[in-house]
This record gives sequence, structure tokens and C-alpha cells, in this order.
Amino acid sequence: MTRGKSAAGLDLPQPPGLLDPRHSASKQEIVYEALRHAILKKWLPAASALPSSRTLAARWGISRGTVEAALDRLQAEAYVARRSGSGTRVCAVVPERYLMAGAAAGMPAPTPGPAGPEQAPAASEVRVLAGQPFVGRLADVNLFPMATWARYLARAIGPATPEQLCSPDAQGAQQLREQIADYLRKHRGMQCAPADIIVTTGIRHSLDLLARALLRPDDIACVEDPGYPSARRLFELAGARVAHIPVDAQGIDCAALRRQGAARLAFVTPAHQSPLGMTMSVTRRLELLDWADRHASWIIEDDYDSEFNYHSAPLPALKSLDQHGRVVYCGSFNKTLFAGLRLGFIVAPPAIRPLLAELLQATCRSVAIAPQLALAEFIRDGAYLRHLRVARRCYQQRRDTLLALLGASGRAPASGYHAGFHFVLWLPQGCDELVFCARAAACDIALQPLRAFSSAARLPPAVVIGYTALTLAQIRYAGQKLVLLLERAWDDMQAQAEAEAAPPAGTAR
Amino acid sequence: MTRGKSAAGLDLPQPPGLLDPRHSASKQEIVYEALRHAILKKWLPAASALPSSRTLAARWGISRGTVEAALDRLQAEAYVARRSGSGTRVCAVVPERYLMAGAAAGMPAPTPGPAGPEQAPAASEVRVLAGQPFVGRLADVNLFPMATWARYLARAIGPATPEQLCSPDAQGAQQLREQIADYLRKHRGMQCAPADIIVTTGIRHSLDLLARALLRPDDIACVEDPGYPSARRLFELAGARVAHIPVDAQGIDCAALRRQGAARLAFVTPAHQSPLGMTMSVTRRLELLDWADRHASWIIEDDYDSEFNYHSAPLPALKSLDQHGRVVYCGSFNKTLFAGLRLGFIVAPPAIRPLLAELLQATCRSVAIAPQLALAEFIRDGAYLRHLRVARRCYQQRRDTLLALLGASGRAPASGYHAGFHFVLWLPQGCDELVFCARAAACDIALQPLRAFSSAARLPPAVVIGYTALTLAQIRYAGQKLVLLLERAWDDMQAQAEAEAAPPAGTAR
Repeated sequence: MTRGKSAAGLDLPQPPGLLDPRHSASKQEIVYEALRHAILKKWLPAASALPSSRTLAARWGISRGTVEAALDRLQAEAYVARRSGSGTRVCAVVPERYLMAGAAAGMPAPTPGPAGPEQAPAASEVRVLAGQPFVGRLADVNLFPMATWARYLARAIGPATPEQLCSPDAQGAQQLREQIADYLRKHRGMQCAPADIIVTTGIRHSLDLLARALLRPDDIACVEDPGYPSARRLFELAGARVAHIPVDAQGIDCAALRRQGAARLAFVTPAHQSPLGMTMSVTRRLELLDWADRHASWIIEDDYDSEFNYHSAPLPALKSLDQHGRVVYCGSFNKTLFAGLRLGFIVAPPAIRPLLAELLQATCRSVAIAPQLALAEFIRDGAYLRHLRVARRCYQQRRDTLLALLGASGRAPASGYHAGFHFVLWLPQGCDELVFCARAAACDIALQPLRAFSSAARLPPAVVIGYTALTLAQIRYAGQKLVLLLERAWDDMQAQAEAEAAPPAGTAR
Repeated sequence: MTRGKSAAGLDLPQPPGLLDPRHSASKQEIVYEALRHAILKKWLPAASALPSSRTLAARWGISRGTVEAALDRLQAEAYVARRSGSGTRVCAVVPERYLMAGAAAGMPAPTPGPAGPEQAPAASEVRVLAGQPFVGRLADVNLFPMATWARYLARAIGPATPEQLCSPDAQGAQQLREQIADYLRKHRGMQCAPADIIVTTGIRHSLDLLARALLRPDDIACVEDPGYPSARRLFELAGARVAHIPVDAQGIDCAALRRQGAARLAFVTPAHQSPLGMTMSVTRRLELLDWADRHASWIIEDDYDSEFNYHSAPLPALKSLDQHGRVVYCGSFNKTLFAGLRLGFIVAPPAIRPLLAELLQATCRSVAIAPQLALAEFIRDGAYLRHLRVARRCYQQRRDTLLALLGASGRAPASGYHAGFHFVLWLPQGCDELVFCARAAACDIALQPLRAFSSAARLPPAVVIGYTALTLAQIRYAGQKLVLLLERAWDDMQAQAEAEAAPPAGTAR
């Protein structure tokens, strides 16, 4: 089959189980997996055209809507490109050598790009957000079924063995590691075993362990700029020199990373860049893996809010593409449940497990056993997934309320709102972030300036806005205040521009 | 009042509240506190003789037994010396400048010295221990009221504020820190406030935080030799050079410490030296504080098992004598309740709190909130003290069973058995510890050689025996096996000595 040739006549067999009502996956998922598999197997080669959704639906005896939904997801994940008039074609971007990296390896997507800091947001993208404290990029503890959790805690201790209570495994309780591995296989496209997992108290504990295990004084640690400030601080604490690598709309700038050359590790947030909010494109992911392979560097993937994707299923993790064991994956339940839980985890490639084991043995910061056992049961019973569904719906409603409320002002270009707990709100060019934040604080609105996330990059003025822990009423109340502040900032900038354009007073005389 | 003059005529007023039945303290405690106060205030100067117990009992209208018990405790804590015939005299050892260091500051005692490693144990002290695994120096999880604890866990979450659940204090929950401060005031003679306390996951986490906050590369950290191996490892991990300071029957050798000169810190276990088990004498405590003051060094006091003192009330902590804020106190509930709990704490002097706060902020290893809140209630309700009483009684019974069983062999000099979770069992001179441990392992008895606790000192052969987590049946069963092993070792040594004394075979020919 040559480039561009239609695959419409290709005999795509009906996916097994598609019409079996006992099958656990939905029809849409089965179709999505079958087409993805055909692309990865090259039965559908790069640039080939797919049969139309109408043809496939008729051939497989299912509704056209089901096929359309599956194709939309494949497009979101960059396996196919859909254009009205020219149908659906397989993308050409996926390098051959990454195909079939693993049975469950998916190709994550270049999202329909919220504007990065380098591009001024287009007028069509003008959307705005707000709320009250706006600083907390946190789960809403009020949504968490605390009474249920209390029962899980009380029940967890009873069946625990004396060994678990007396000499808990420093890597974490076996039951919890099993549930995490299972979750990651099903929901993040990762092949991992309980032995790969180390339970921690959250992302900072994970990063602290990794920094101490992997970094020696004067090693270079690359971080995204802007990026997660705690990562930078922990790498410096371990004695490393931190290299700030810029990001653009596709994620970390791999050309800059290559210019940096060898480094011991790079810390990235592929699902929802912290703080700018874009998703790392598949091209970038592959370039990043290539860089790591070439320099025998480690990639630390912080998958901090991938569970909250409002437009489609969360994309598979970068780790799912990792053929050579260079990616260390970090996740946290403090983000998805509540911050006081203090449970997170590392998925460690085999090569670094002895280093981590040694450090864990020495520092022995094993995590309290009761919450670990309770969480294992909470996941096993499906209560975790149920909670994620409820929380996702609420957060989306909060986000949509903000967007609707503030979008009306026409004065608040936002980006990075397709997922997670926060957005970036861009201020008018020339506006002083700190002055804006101080004015907001005077109205009881706490804002974090974007520059707090960067130590080097020159960024356009913006603020990072967390909205998930606010009620709709709080969002409406504080959002209106924020609109007024934004209007004032835009008016100020316009007045300033006019004053500069007008002839100076001296000339007029 | 001159040295040696009798204080028998001194008007010691009746302690307030002594005969008040509503007073919360026992009569014995009130008498103890009153006499101690009189010594610290110098109403009873050094070397003065106290009124007889009969006189005091009559004067204060209480039983003579009550006065005797209070005097015994004062003797155990080295405030007074009692000799039959010459009555009770105030000790001369307490330097003036430490008097009245704080209202509750007590003078801990040179315990009636179990033999240190330098002294061969006297025949009269021949006592022996044993049991089955014998390695775990752990609380017995089976004694812990786990069902009650489950209820505390379940109830703890309900009244928690959203702030506690969402953004837990990195220093630990306020409620727990209040209960810890209260406990330390009442039971360890320490003046401390909740703000001084940092909740950790246990001693290794505490030491890791302290090492990282206090030590810079090539700083010198002094440790007891033999001593707690994890402390040594964590100080090395922080880049420090570790200086091994010998211990003798009174605790760390302060002359050796002075020869070492300036060091950033010294790590000590005053209550029950780990592993040899002696209590640091008051003289040594004062010398140690003097050394720290002189060099502006820090003393880290690991008070790891002071709650389990089988012969008298636990001695006040070294920290209670600390006038200049040089002592950092570490405690752990993993030792007193169960290891899987993962809760411990640091009492930090004001000068290092900013360093620790910064590190906590960066590494943010705050501890799970539910167990913290549950423990606060557990302590407040008195359940913690009740559990300590039950556990202490059981451990003492296990220890006594071991001593009775093995003492009969006459082949097992032991030391360090007055407190804690373990003893030291001395092997015959010339016996190879590792051979002995290997033989024991072949009989399913796990032993830890003393040399595992030392990297430098030349120690007589011995093993460290943990017995608290074994049932009486296990102790009897494994203890008998151990007796046989010990008899064999002594017989071997004797046979060897006889062979060496006998003329060689060649000479006889």
C-alpha cells in the first residue's frame, strides 16, 4: 500500500468480542483498540486513508456514532488526522522503531494546543477563569467520601498480618502495590508489576528519593522552564546543577535539551505541563526518549493530574512508550483524593531499583500501614474510580462556570484548561504581574504569578489559577471580582498606550 | 549549712497538697517532687544529711513506706545516696550551674551499672537471656489494642477540618503536637511547647532530617561505638565524616569526645545505650552538655525505649538538663505501639527550627493525617499510658522468664537488662561471635552479633538479644536451645584452654 493510497478497500476484520454483550469493554473502546492495533501493526500504514465511519459501521454491524467516537479519540491521540472532505488518514509522525513498543503502549497526542507562552493567544481563544483563593491546585476534600474512607481505615487494620504491622515493607504494602500496578495497566497504558512500585508520601518524597539516589554533586538535572519549583529545589538540595530547558506549545524544547547535551536526568510533566498546561506532543515524547537513550539519562515523568482530563480519556503515560527503561514514573493520590492522605508512588525501572532500595533501607521512610491497606481496598472495590468520576464531573462544571463567566469579559485569554486543577490566565502585555497580584490580594483574591514557576525564562505576564477546590458560589463571587481587576488592567494598558502615542505636552506648546 | 552537717533539724515544710485527697499526683510523687525541689533550691545543700524516713513520715503525717519509695527514686536518679547506718545524704556531684535549669529539670542517674564491655561481668551478675527470633528489638504488636485503634482511626477523620485534610501542617497536626508536649512535660521532665515539635515517621526520618539540616560535607558527626548503625549511615549519607567515640559503663566517653574536639554534632542514647544498655550517668550528661556548649555542637538524644524501665520510673531526659538549647530530642511511637504506625517526633531547639522548616517545606514529608489525629486522641484519653503499663508488665515478665531460665545455666553473663527491648549476652572470651550466630541459626535462632553495631571498637564477643516481641512459650522453647548453645561454647573454650595448657603431643614422645 503506497503513501496516500486509500485503505477503504482493506479488509479490516470485525474486532473479536465486538458484539459480545458479556465483553467488559465498551464497543467504542473495542473499535478504538482494533484500529490502534492495526496502525501499530502497520496493517494501516502511515498516511493511508481509513474506510469512512459509515462503511466501518455497516461492515461491523454497529452504530456510526460509536465509530465516530473511536476515530475522535484516535485523532486526539495523534494516530489519525481527520479533515472534512478528505476523510481520515493515518498520521505519518510515529517513527517505525517505536511501533509495538508494548502491547498496551499507546501513542499520546499533540493536543489541539492551548497557546504557549511564546505565542500571543489568538483572539478566538480568549477565555477567562477565576475563583477565590485561586492558589490551591488541589483536590476538593469536600467531594471525598470521608465517612466511607473512615470505614475503610477501620477495616484495614483487622486483616493485616503481624508482619505487616511489625516490620512493614519499606517499598510499601504488597496489596497496595498490586492495585496500583493494575490501575496503571488499565488506565495509563503501562506494563508494570507490583515489584516495580515504591510507595511514598507523595511527589516531593518521590522526587527527594530519586534526587538522592540518582544525582551526585555537580550532575546536571534538566527541568522545564517554567516548571514545578519543588523539583528544582530538591535537585539543588541533592547537589545537582539545574539546567532550565524552555517549553513551547508542544512541551519541553528537545532542541534545547540536545544543546544541553548529557545530563543525569530530565524532569517533565507530559500529561499537563506544570504550570502552562499543554500536553507533550507525541513527536516531543519520542525525541525526549531518544535523547535519554543517547545519553543514558533518566526521565522523571510526573503524571500529576492526568486523571482529570475533561475532553477525552487521559492519554497513555510517556512511560508506556519507554522501551529501554529510562523513564521513572511518579504518581500521587494526594492529588486525586485529598492532600492529608500522604500517599504517592514511584514506578522505577529495574536499573535504579537497587539504588532506591538502599536509600529506603537507610532512611526507612516507609509510609503508615493503615492508609496503605485502606487505599488498596478502596481501589479494589471500585470506590477510587467512582470518586474520580464524581470529582471529574464537578471540576469540569467549576471550570466551565469560570470559562462562561469570565469569557464574557473578552479580557482574559487563558490556556491549559483542558485538564487538571489549574489554568494559566494571560495578562495584557506590559502589565506588571506582581502589581496585579497585589491588587487582587487587596480584594481577598490570592493569585500566583507565573514567574513564581520560573527562575530564568522571560515570560509574558500571567497568573496561574487553581479552581478545583472552590465551590460554584465561590467561583461566581470571586470570578466577578477578577473580571473587574482584569478590565482595569486592560484599561490601564490601553490608557498607557494612548498616552505614549499622543504628542508629549512640551511639543504641543 | 556546712558539708556533711545533718539536715535532720531542718524545717522541711509539709509539701502543699500532700494530704489533699483530690490531688492528682500520688503522695509518693509529691514527696519526691518536694525533696527534689529542696535539693535543686539548695535548701538541702550538697552532702547534707536528710531527716530519716521515720522522722519525715511522722512530721508529714504519712506512712514511712511512702517516704522510703520517694527516697529510693531520688537515689536511683542520683539526687541522694543512701547507706545503711549513715542515712541519706544529698549527692555532691551536681554542678551548681545546672541547678534549677528548669522547674521540671531532673538529674538523671548513674544506674547501678550493668557491666560495660570493658569490664568483664562479675560472676555475681551472671544472668542470661534468650528466645526465638531474638533479632527484633520491637514492640509486640499482639499486645496493642488493634480493634480500639481501628475505632480511633475511624473517628479521627470526622472532626478534622478541611484545612487539616487539604493542607496539613508540615510540622505535624497541632493536636498531636500538643499531646506530645504534654506527655514530655509530665513523663520526661522536659519543658517544651507544641511549636518545638516536628512529627516524623520515626527515628530514621528524624535523623535523616537532622543530618540534612545540620551537616555540611566534611562536618564531623560523633557517634557512640558500639552504637545505632542507622545513625552512622545517615550521617555519612549527608556527607559528614563520622567519628566513633567509645562508650564505657557510664555512657559515651567524654574524654575521648574532648580529644576529638569540635564536631558539628554527637548522637547519643542516654536512657539505655544502644546496644549495650547502660544508662548515661549524670556526670557524663553534664560533661556532654559542657562539651556541646564549648564547641557550639548539637547533641541528638535518641530516647528510644525510656518508656520501658523495669526497675523504677523512667529517668528524665538529657534534654531536661539542656540550658542552652543544644539538645535535639527524638522520640518514636513505632517503638512503643507498633512499627507499622510510622509516627515519631523531634523536639527541636529554636536555633535549628528554621533549618528544619526549610527542609520540611522542600521535601514535604508530612505524615498521613488520620494516624496523627487518632494518636492525639489515643494519648489524650489515657489509652496510651494504659497500653504502656500493660506492655511494660508483659515485657518485664518475658525478661524475668528469660533471666530465670537462662541464669540457671551459669553460663550467660548479660547486661543492659534494666530497661528496653533488648539485652547484651556476653560469650566466653575467645569465642567467635559469627560462628556462634551461625550455629544458632542452624537451630532456628536468629542472633545479632554485637560487632554489627560497631565499625571500629574491639569488643569482647557478645550477641544482642531482643525479647519483647516473643511470647513466654517462645521464650521458654528458644531459651533452652540457647542455653545448650552457650554451654557448648563455654565447654569448647574450656577444652581449648586445657589443650593449650597441656604439653604438646611432640614433647610427650
